[in-house]
Formats: sequence, C-alpha cells, structure tokens
Amino acid sequence: MSNKNNLEALFKPKSIAIIGASRHPGKIGYTLMKNIIEYGYKGKIYPINPKAEEIMGIKAYKSILDVPDEVDMAIIVVPAQYVLQVAEECGKKGVKVLVVITSGFSEVGNDEAEKKLVEIAHKYGMRVLGPNIFGIAYTPAKLNATFGPNEVLEGPIAFISQSGALGIALMGWTVMEEIGVSAIVSMGNMADIDVVDVSKYLSEDPNTKVITIYLEGLKPGSGRRFVEEMKKVTMKKPVIVIKAGRSKRGAMAAASHTGSLAGSDQVYNVAFKQAGIIRALTTEEMFDWARAFASQPIPKGENTIIITNGGGVGVLATDAAEDHGVKLLEPSPELKEKLRKAMPWFGSPKNPVDLTGQASTENYVEALKVAYESDEVDNIVVLYCRTAILDPIELAKAIIEVNNTYRNKCKPMVAGFVGGKDTFEAIRLLNREGVPAYPSAERAVVSLAKMLEYMRYLKKVKKQ
Amino acid sequence: MSNKNNLEALFKPKSIAIIGASRHPGKIGYTLMKNIIEYGYKGKIYPINPKAEEIMGIKAYKSILDVPDEVDMAIIVVPAQYVLQVAEECGKKGVKVLVVITSGFSEVGNDEAEKKLVEIAHKYGMRVLGPNIFGIAYTPAKLNATFGPNEVLEGPIAFISQSGALGIALMGWTVMEEIGVSAIVSMGNMADIDVVDVSKYLSEDPNTKVITIYLEGLKPGSGRRFVEEMKKVTMKKPVIVIKAGRSKRGAMAAASHTGSLAGSDQVYNVAFKQAGIIRALTTEEMFDWARAFASQPIPKGENTIIITNGGGVGVLATDAAEDHGVKLLEPSPELKEKLRKAMPWFGSPKNPVDLTGQASTENYVEALKVAYESDEVDNIVVLYCRTAILDPIELAKAIIEVNNTYRNKCKPMVAGFVGGKDTFEAIRLLNREGVPAYPSAERAVVSLAKMLEYMRYLKKVKKQ
Repeated sequence: MSNKNNLEALFKPKSIAIIGASRHPGKIGYTLMKNIIEYGYKGKIYPINPKAEEIMGIKAYKSILDVPDEVDMAIIVVPAQYVLQVAEECGKKGVKVLVVITSGFSEVGNDEAEKKLVEIAHKYGMRVLGPNIFGIAYTPAKLNATFGPNEVLEGPIAFISQSGALGIALMGWTVMEEIGVSAIVSMGNMADIDVVDVSKYLSEDPNTKVITIYLEGLKPGSGRRFVEEMKKVTMKKPVIVIKAGRSKRGAMAAASHTGSLAGSDQVYNVAFKQAGIIRALTTEEMFDWARAFASQPIPKGENTIIITNGGGVGVLATDAAEDHGVKLLEPSPELKEKLRKAMPWFGSPKNPVDLTGQASTENYVEALKVAYESDEVDNIVVLYCRTAILDPIELAKAIIEVNNTYRNKCKPMVAGFVGGKDTFEAIRLLNREGVPAYPSAERAVVSLAKMLEYMRYLKKVKKQ
Repeated sequence: MSNKNNLEALFKPKSIAIIGASRHPGKIGYTLMKNIIEYGYKGKIYPINPKAEEIMGIKAYKSILDVPDEVDMAIIVVPAQYVLQVAEECGKKGVKVLVVITSGFSEVGNDEAEKKLVEIAHKYGMRVLGPNIFGIAYTPAKLNATFGPNEVLEGPIAFISQSGALGIALMGWTVMEEIGVSAIVSMGNMADIDVVDVSKYLSEDPNTKVITIYLEGLKPGSGRRFVEEMKKVTMKKPVIVIKAGRSKRGAMAAASHTGSLAGSDQVYNVAFKQAGIIRALTTEEMFDWARAFASQPIPKGENTIIITNGGGVGVLATDAAEDHGVKLLEPSPELKEKLRKAMPWFGSPKNPVDLTGQASTENYVEALKVAYESDEVDNIVVLYCRTAILDPIELAKAIIEVNNTYRNKCKPMVAGFVGGKDTFEAIRLLNREGVPAYPSAERAVVSLAKMLEYMRYLKKVKKQ
C-alpha cells in the first residue's frame, strides 16, 4: 500500500488523465487542464469527457477505460456522486495515483463515501491525494496540476497546505514575492496520502531544500507516527509548520473547516519540538524563514555579528537578537582592530558594528570579509538604511559577490534593508542571488534565529 | 521659553534661512535647499553662504544678519565649530527656531558646546531642534526641510524619529508603501525641543490623526514630565511608540548611538502604560497600526466579527484574535439567520463567518451590511483569499463603498487580503480609500487589537 512508486507518480507522472476535463472556461476541469498544458507538462495528457471529441486540441475519451496507453495519474473533477465509479474504472485501468479535486466528502459529513473511495483505491494498489483539494504542482517536472494561478516560480521551497483557499491565495503570493517553489501540494481531507507521506517523499527530493506546511490538524491517533516519521524528515531537511487553530476558538473553527480534530495546542507544541519542526505563527514568518534555509548553509555555531550603517537599525536588531536567542559575539581586540580599518574614524567596531551613515560599499565589503575570515564569527547579519551616499543596488551587488566568494566558509548571512523603492529592488536582487533579505532588521534576525534553532536540534539529536 | 509660537514656526515657518546652503550636489546644504524648493514651500527662502551670489536661482546672503526681512526658521548646516557663532547671529536677527542639522555635539561627547547652543538660543527666545538631525517635514505646509527623500506623501500620520539613518530610510519606505504623513520630525540629541514638545504640538494639529515615535531613550530625570504630558496627548490622539534598546545589549548600543540613557525597559513599559501609549516592537507594526488609527473610528465596544471566504485565513485570524485580546462575538440566532441569507447554503454563519470559496462580491456586501446594521457587532474584520471567481479589485471597490455608506455607525473595519499581484493592488486601493488593509489576516487582527487597547485606555481614564 505505501508504495513509493505511486508517490513518484504523484510528483512525476508519465501520463495524466483528467476525468471531468471541460471545454468551458470558469469550470475547474477547464482551468486544471489549461494549467497543465500551459505550464509545460511534457507527458501524455488524456482528457476524459463523455460529451467531447477533443479538448484544447487534445483527443478526449468517453471513459478512462478507452485510453489506449498507460495512465500514471488520474485527476478527478467530476461531482461527488460519480467519484466512486470513476475510481473503480481507474483501478481497472491500472492508474497509480488518484488526485481527487472533488469536494463533498468527510468535510461535509460524508465519511462513508470517503472511506469507500480509499477502499477502492487500495484494492487496486492506488494511492489517493484528497479529496477536497486544489491539486498538486511540482515545478522540476513542469507540472502544475492545480486550478490555482498558472505562473509558479521554480525554486527549492516545498509548500504543503491543508487549506484550499489559503493555499491557492499563497500560490499567487509566492509569485508576487518571487519565492521559488519545488512543490505545492493541497492535502484536503487526507483520506489516504497525508502530510507525513508527502514530507517523506520531499525529504528525498533533490529539488527541495526546505519543507513548509500549513496544518490545521492531524487525524486522531496519528500523532505518534507523525513524530517518529517527521524526526527522520528533519534529519534531512528543515521543516517549518504553521499549525492553525492554536486558540480554543480557532481549533473549533478548524474542526468545522476541514473536519480534522485540532487537538490541544500544547500537544502539537511538544510533538513539533520532539520532531525538530520549527513552528511559525504567520505565513509571512514561514516564508521568511524558508527563504533563509533555502539559500544559506545551516549555522555551525552561535556567534553572530551585526554589521550596519545605521545605529537605529542596529539597536532594533540587537533587541530582536536578545528576544529570539541569537548570541551576539564579543569581538576580540584583534577583531575590533581589523573591523576598525573597515570604517570611518567615528564608526564603532563593537557588535553591532556601526559603519555609520557615511559608510561606502567598500566599507561593507571590507567588514564582511573580516567577518567571513574571522574564526570568532559564525553568522552574519548585514543591515542597511538608505542613505543619500550609498546606492542600495550597488551595495546589494557587492554583498552578493562577497557571499559567493565565501560560500565555502559555511557561515549563514541574512540581510535587512530599510528604505524606499530602490532599496526594495535591492532586496529582490539579494533574494534572487541567494542572500535572504528582508525589509527590516527584525525579520532578518528572526530568520537567522530559526536557523540556529534547527542547528541546535540537529546537534542534540546527533549527539544521542 | 516654552513658546508655542516658536513651535508654530517649526512646522509653519513664514520664511527660512539655510545657513550653509550649497551649490554642490552631494552636500547636505544642497539637498536640503533643493528639497525645500522642489517640495513646493511657499514662504521666503534665504540661502546663507559667504561665497555665493545666488543658489538655485535664489539670492544668497553672506550672513543671516544681511537678510532684509524677518526670518522665522534658520536651518544650520555649517560645521560644528561655527554653529555657536551662527546661533548668536540668528538670535540677533530675531529668528524663532533653529533647526540644527550639524552633528558633532553630545553624541560624540561634546556636551559643552551643546549646552552653550541652547543657552544662546534661550537668551534670544529661540527654540532648538537637534542638533544632529536630518530635518523636519510638515506636508500641509508643503515643507520638506530634510536631506531625506523629496517625495513625501501627504496624510494624517505624524512620525517622530530619534534615529537619523532609520528615520530617513523610513521616509523612503512610507512613500513606497503609500503611507501618508503629516509631519516627519528628526529629534537627534534633543538638546531643547524634545519628543514631548513635538507630540504636544501635533496633538493640537488638525492635520495629524495619529503620532508615531521611534524612541531610543529619554533624558535622565525627564520620565515624570513625559508621562504627565503624554497623558494629555493620548487623551486627544493615539500615540504609537517603538522604544528601541529593550534588551540589555540593545540599551548599550542605543546609549553609544544617541548618547541617551536607555534606562530599564520595564520602566518604559510602565510609563507607556500609564500614559496610554501603544508600544510596537517593529517599524512594520507601528505603521500597520497607525494606518488603522488614521482611517477608521476608535471602537465603541469589544464585539468583533470576522467575515471570510477562506476557512484557513478565518482560523489564522481567530488564533490571532485570541492571542491579542480581540473578543469574537457569539452571534445571536437572529443575526445568524440574517448572515445565512448572505452566503451559499454550505457557508457558516458562526464567527468567523465563512462565506466559502464560492463567495461573490454580493455575498460580502450583504454580510457587511448585516454586520454594520447589527447592534451586536462593534468591529469588523473582513478577510479574502484570492479565488478564481472573485476579483479582488472588484471586491475592494465594493468594500470601500459599504465602508463609506456606514461611516456614521462608527464601527472600525480592517481588511486582510491574501493573494498575488491583483490582490496586492486591491490592498493598495483599500488603503488609499480609508479601509486599512494588510496582506495577511493576522496583521489586520492585530491592528484592530491595538485600537481596542486604546479604546480601553480611554474608557478607563475617562471614568476616573
């Protein structure tokens, strides 16, 4: 039943049937098929529709049983009352995985049909994603089998969502924010394939560096398996979870939304801690942190240096560091001496290292080199306030170059840039080129804090 | 000494002398003068420069004493060693307020000169802003006397900054984020005019609805005055403060940055609470909340309703509400009945009110009307996840219209919209038209929570 090849078919199907494909714009069966074609899927596509000869220029079949070739994945979009019959046919056809978009199952109390659906699937050795989902995307295979936005940016962040509407909305958000994703998986009712299955698969996926999950609740009784299996996942890759329904009332809302038992929040907290999962409270946090994990090495030690051209952001960063357990290094006299050479005479080589508002790109480059080359420094936070004399784009380019030069040092660097439009462009540039950058000092520091949290977890479990 | 007219001259000077005005781009004395002219200042401008006949087409004078007319404000940009002499001349000329941009005073240990500067000023009945500042902007008077960005958007949010670099950077940020400001005041060393003076003036200013402050520390011994005077300010207008240097190490960094004594953070917490000041931890929070205060009425009661088209964001909002003390209303059977009519049959009239992913603009409008018209509801959180069937711009327009129709109900509304580019545009539109809108449910809820905090404070002090 837990057939790895079938999950392979979920992410890298050689052929796809869309049962309920439609010629009518606005229909889910239309959008889905359009997304698959337009995103550039290279495998065979078989639209299934009893009333159509062809859809979007592709020959249609009345039933999946009429398809002359093998079908890896069947995406089911037909109304709930037809799903079981269609599943039976898919089984007979030898389909490996069912992606059941259709809603109207356990989330509205129709538990019986959902159970039957899984029974039928397992009888034929098929796995089921869903029901009640918006689909799956896996960018390395050029697969966008969702009815969400078409343009998804390729990158190393996987996103698993138990909420449909939020998941689709966040798909659009990742595009706008230029967050590159490897996979987007809608979990829905998790009748068969669950968050653990998908996480395990992605932990072996060379195109995924970090896994993010929007979770509302696990099935009753699945807690132990979740902890045991996710422990293995986090040994390989960082996992960041938003567990919604933390509050009593939120848990009730979650229960009525996906039908999942939310359970006591404290239980989840313990489970996440045991499994080495990092918990975010907001979607912004989740993607902020994922960006850092996606582009920088895991820290080797605690000693962090802050390099800034603004005293104010330096203070804000220092506050955030203390709030979030980031240890600021006390530079040795030798290190201070080296840093002093990188700044105007009225700067400060204490940590935060204040290059002052008169700082040039050269000052930054020099100070960063000193930090990378010093054995005292494990992690670097580089901050910038827009000044008239220092162009943020020029600075960003220089920082990217230094970062690339010193990649072998395995010292994570995060950046906080405060300013207007050109500063925003500099942030985009940094992110594109692998330096996680944020519009405030605090968000940069907190992202580093989460990398340190993960480092501490790994050190602890590897000692055991 | 505490002459209100002199502060009037700080915000609405009838004439300005720029002592140290320069013809050379890159110089502060150049940027400052350029900003004043280009931002559209209507009063008289007198560049003072011993070596120039005219600057930017305006007749220059060798000394302020040569200026034939009255001068309200003198902006001083000359090096520190000339400042005292220049101040003396300004006094003789009858200047009302000195804006001392020049640095090199108490922030580098030069306390003596700073003391002298204030003595000279007070001898002549002048007030001093600074030294060590980037200037002052007051948009209703078309005054941008800073060396920061030129384009500042007009609006009802005042921003007072004790940090120079951060203040300038945030000026640019407000433009990018379309945050309209009434005043931006750089405080620097606060040798004379301090945060309290400026806050008091702005509390009477009809163009300011909310005051935001980046604070690093008060002068020793000024705590009691701060609390007493700020109490009066918050009776009139909400005040949001970031007090940086919360942590031990941050306090040390702040002390070396502005030379101010940061003091124990706990003391500040108590002082802010007593004075009814709302404390933010990050600049993003500060402006998020200011936006809500700037455009919506102060709440009258605690009962809040959440209206959403996505279960997931509804759950996240519910969690945030519990975290931040926002009380979610239990709708009466009558209210539920009315709400039910505003949604598809499978929606939920419980709070959060789930209009479902099938929700139309009409559903939202209907539900919002019910909420505005119900006596059970005091506050409204409206959430949206981008769906294929509901255009965010169309929805935003409808929400703006409903909000305008029901302004007389005095029920604050905040919006959280999640999605891609068009959703982002909808957020901008909402903000422009007076509905505070954010890219996540959480930020919307927290902004409302801060309005409720202020409401509770006002109710408490008004009872006393």
